[in-house]
Amino acid sequence: MSEKTISQKITFKGDFLTVLKDEVQLPNGNFATREYIHHIGASAIIAQNNKNEFLLLKQYRHALKTNFYEFPAGKRDFPDEDYLLTAQRELLEETGYRAKLWNKLGLIHPCIGYADEVIHIYHAEQLEFHATSREEGEHIEVFWKTKKEIDDLIRSNNMTDTKSISAWSIYSLNNCS
Amino acid sequence: MSEKTISQKITFKGDFLTVLKDEVQLPNGNFATREYIHHIGASAIIAQNNKNEFLLLKQYRHALKTNFYEFPAGKRDFPDEDYLLTAQRELLEETGYRAKLWNKLGLIHPCIGYADEVIHIYHAEQLEFHATSREEGEHIEVFWKTKKEIDDLIRSNNMTDTKSISAWSIYSLNNCS
Repeated sequence: MSEKTISQKITFKGDFLTVLKDEVQLPNGNFATREYIHHIGASAIIAQNNKNEFLLLKQYRHALKTNFYEFPAGKRDFPDEDYLLTAQRELLEETGYRAKLWNKLGLIHPCIGYADEVIHIYHAEQLEFHATSREEGEHIEVFWKTKKEIDDLIRSNNMTDTKSISAWSIYSLNNCS
Repeated sequence: MSEKTISQKITFKGDFLTVLKDEVQLPNGNFATREYIHHIGASAIIAQNNKNEFLLLKQYRHALKTNFYEFPAGKRDFPDEDYLLTAQRELLEETGYRAKLWNKLGLIHPCIGYADEVIHIYHAEQLEFHATSREEGEHIEVFWKTKKEIDDLIRSNNMTDTKSISAWSIYSLNNCS
């Protein structure tokens, strides 16, 4: 099933968030409105070293006033940016690492009820450390974690960020027995 | 680390979305603004029958103009609603099932960069079918899927909704070897 878009307008444009409001026609002929965030898209990275450890961050997120375990991730800089370039830039900025080997794992949708955001997921290997270049106000701790440690963080509900759990789940189901 | 909230205002209130804007002070003393969606909270349900099958939905989501595989889920009706009651109501509304046995699996955060949303995850067993009572405009297909079928949907990137992947991952890590 699908809904036919009759009209679309921007109802809010803030410093960071843009809200769209569409008038739609339902399959039964009735009309309804759909309000959602327009997002530029993002990439997230499962970066693995040659000791089978994975780069994990801990970062403060003001919306929830909590420090979260997350995989490296970030938004595209402009609407047509290639998602792989976004991934490479964010990995370097947040962790200081460059990777020689990149593989696409898939994509995920974090907020299907009220945002059009898509996050592309990459697996990065053959890592080399360079300098970090974090943006002002980004306070990030970086950890190396084993597969078991990451599974335990999810199992014990100490990693609750859904982009990170989902990226790890897709990676694990494709790479582990 | 954390940020100190200096002020908060509502910068947008739409039909469904509310945008907050906080002025914050960073640990280094600088000031910044944080813009995010205020969300009432939600529950999601892994409902399992006595044949070890799980209830999965397919539902159209206008923000992405796509039909998504999802576990049953929905928002609280009011700010203090008990998340278990939300889960019980949404399972009944979306699938027509009531469950006798409920266990909390944990909680997840779908959108830590720009929303304060929390989704509580429940495991429901001992199911009995009653009538569905879907809201107008909710067009939902309901399926029974095995563990292998759900793992395959995630592995093949045919299930991309992060609340559903994350709920399944927490369930799987706690209940499967």
